Amino acid sequence: MSKVIGQLSKVIRRRIYLDYAATTPLDSRVEKAMRPFLRVKFGNPSSIHTEGVAAKKAMDGARTSVARCLEAHADEIVFTSGGTEANNLALYGVLNHLANTDGRRYLLKKQGKPHIVTTNIEHASVLEPLRELERQGRVSVTYVPVESNGIVKPEKIIAAIRPNTALVSVMYANNEIGTIQPIRKIGQLLAPLRNSKFIIHNSPSEKRYPVFHSDACQAPLYLRCLVNALRVDLLTLDAHKMYGPKGVGILYARRGTPLSSLLLGGGQEKGLRSTTENVSGVVGLAKALELAIAERERESRRLEKLRDYFYSQILENLRIDYRVNGGMEKGERLPNNLNISLPEIDTEFLTLKLDAQGIAVSTKSSCLRDERSSYVVAALGGGAKRASATLRFTLGRTTTRRDVVTAASILGNLLLLLR
Amino acid sequence: MSKVIGQLSKVIRRRIYLDYAATTPLDSRVEKAMRPFLRVKFGNPSSIHTEGVAAKKAMDGARTSVARCLEAHADEIVFTSGGTEANNLALYGVLNHLANTDGRRYLLKKQGKPHIVTTNIEHASVLEPLRELERQGRVSVTYVPVESNGIVKPEKIIAAIRPNTALVSVMYANNEIGTIQPIRKIGQLLAPLRNSKFIIHNSPSEKRYPVFHSDACQAPLYLRCLVNALRVDLLTLDAHKMYGPKGVGILYARRGTPLSSLLLGGGQEKGLRSTTENVSGVVGLAKALELAIAERERESRRLEKLRDYFYSQILENLRIDYRVNGGMEKGERLPNNLNISLPEIDTEFLTLKLDAQGIAVSTKSSCLRDERSSYVVAALGGGAKRASATLRFTLGRTTTRRDVVTAASILGNLLLLLR
Repeated sequence: MSKVIGQLSKVIRRRIYLDYAATTPLDSRVEKAMRPFLRVKFGNPSSIHTEGVAAKKAMDGARTSVARCLEAHADEIVFTSGGTEANNLALYGVLNHLANTDGRRYLLKKQGKPHIVTTNIEHASVLEPLRELERQGRVSVTYVPVESNGIVKPEKIIAAIRPNTALVSVMYANNEIGTIQPIRKIGQLLAPLRNSKFIIHNSPSEKRYPVFHSDACQAPLYLRCLVNALRVDLLTLDAHKMYGPKGVGILYARRGTPLSSLLLGGGQEKGLRSTTENVSGVVGLAKALELAIAERERESRRLEKLRDYFYSQILENLRIDYRVNGGMEKGERLPNNLNISLPEIDTEFLTLKLDAQGIAVSTKSSCLRDERSSYVVAALGGGAKRASATLRFTLGRTTTRRDVVTAASILGNLLLLLR
Repeated sequence: MSKVIGQLSKVIRRRIYLDYAATTPLDSRVEKAMRPFLRVKFGNPSSIHTEGVAAKKAMDGARTSVARCLEAHADEIVFTSGGTEANNLALYGVLNHLANTDGRRYLLKKQGKPHIVTTNIEHASVLEPLRELERQGRVSVTYVPVESNGIVKPEKIIAAIRPNTALVSVMYANNEIGTIQPIRKIGQLLAPLRNSKFIIHNSPSEKRYPVFHSDACQAPLYLRCLVNALRVDLLTLDAHKMYGPKGVGILYARRGTPLSSLLLGGGQEKGLRSTTENVSGVVGLAKALELAIAERERESRRLEKLRDYFYSQILENLRIDYRVNGGMEKGERLPNNLNISLPEIDTEFLTLKLDAQGIAVSTKSSCLRDERSSYVVAALGGGAKRASATLRFTLGRTTTRRDVVTAASILGNLLLLLR
């Protein structure tokens, strides 16, 4: 059998990267857009001379482009150092703002601490800040469980809301199992409640609670991220998940959303995020988002077909117990994602074996490197074995039919050896 | 006269950039070091496959290199999105950590809120967080005034320390007037106090207060940044101030320094700064710091000579009232910095006129774009006119003797027109 694998590995000319949910390579068109802002147009956007003005113009152009992509206003776009900072800014920003206004006093008198509604499969950069806020006694949090298909019922989110709910945070698409949450529906159900049920504040300007945030880092390559259609107040995006550079992201923040800054200093980004702007990164992000939207439909169709074919090939080679994680129905998951559990297999070892054969996949979120099992898959039910034996394949722009045939074949052979 | 300027402007082949304190162009050697990590080695350092391991290795290499440059341990280097985040992490990190430990309760009972000592010429990314902490009633702050030469007396810092002082934050070199603070001396005087005077905590591990932080963003090109010689616990650096990329910085954090995280999520950077690492940026930062150190002495000598020559040329052309801001004695200011006030002149207008003639300078910190005058120069005394009529020249790697001759000549001619 090892002979067969040996022969196969010779056939592989290049590595097959099937971990696009962890990170994506920089698109050459994005790199090209960024390059002038590294060495030539290097000015500080806050400077008033020609070099500064050129940098400011690039920032403005990128901001306008991003806003257009999201059907938002340019002044609603806050550039950050990535998805994690954007999520942290959303959560701490809303809570800190509340803590520094009269609403806090009102809340304490009437309703106790602020309340937050989220799901049990959010990314670590949402769950960890929430747990820290809980530990500090600053908030109470309801973690609404997803259904067995990895999707939360909008009614359950709404049912969890209390008069003191300050924030609802639900991710758009899950990073591990790729399931798509009904953000638009939640936004629809949430909107009318703001004028009646919520009592944090009384003045008209304060009918902003609960603020609705969605972590959409995994979404823009495959899903429409139009902030008004989704009815979100805050939306997180990350460049490196969409063939853009690492170290730059966005928090969309609807006008009037009560939000405090995380980073204080020179007052950049309308005071919401001080620091000298990462001009080349921001230009790259804008280009990456433009490309994502331009190619979304075509690439979604292509990858869905490839993913389904890959799945059928795996099933053909799979002679052991397996579970698919997350719904496989149309519209239930991202077109590039396949996540299975192999309860009889040490999937971490399998991942290393696949890597040795030139195939890059992952077991779970790369942000959970040191965890033994996936809390996302655990949330689907099915016991500990299912959650600790996960395998995630995420396809992307370079993935070809030949790649998935090869990968499925190598996987099948390895499973014969490992079981 | 405009004819003379017209002729001069024809002579200028390229723009003369004299605003290196605002930001520096990316060094071609830094760009070369970064490039492989944009498109080819694009993995997520948290992934266990080959792509991830390569990225992790690059991060480790950069971390080791930075540590060597600072004579620190690799595990003491926290990569951030820049100097602002590093400064914010230092300040909020120390204060939040204290708020979540027994020290807080002890303090409240015995000494009131935590106390911070700093100077009145720190960067906005130090002063703004401190003001916000004061507004929230979380700390009291002593702003020790600098002397008329822009340098703080170490004894005054020490005299300001109280039994409840949690943090001392003094910048290494000022971004506007380039004056160099006696960090080493302050560190020396501070160290012995930790075992006697401070009563925040009682246990041996807690003799860490007051923590000593220095914002060294302007320093590494010209000053030795060895953390043990300086006796700092926390040190801030920013890549884009030393010919590295924008959007990446460092907080050096001495082992055992009580510090909480600002960004929570995947637990990267030993839990002190979660987010997918900006691998190319970090690699660029490390390379930029290596180059800064390798060229520090030679470049300092070269720029000091050029700066002094520039100053003499300006004086020759200057027929109006002026004040130099910050001490000009050896060792008092950065070798590349000249900052003067021209009380009779609208220096913002002059800056635009110089820009039109191809010369980029600034009036003050680019992070104070919307302020009318410089609080740094105001701190030197001499009245409002001096603080609102500043002009900053900062030289750098591309600056030549011909540049400064041209710049001084054009400045002289413009001043004849404007006065």
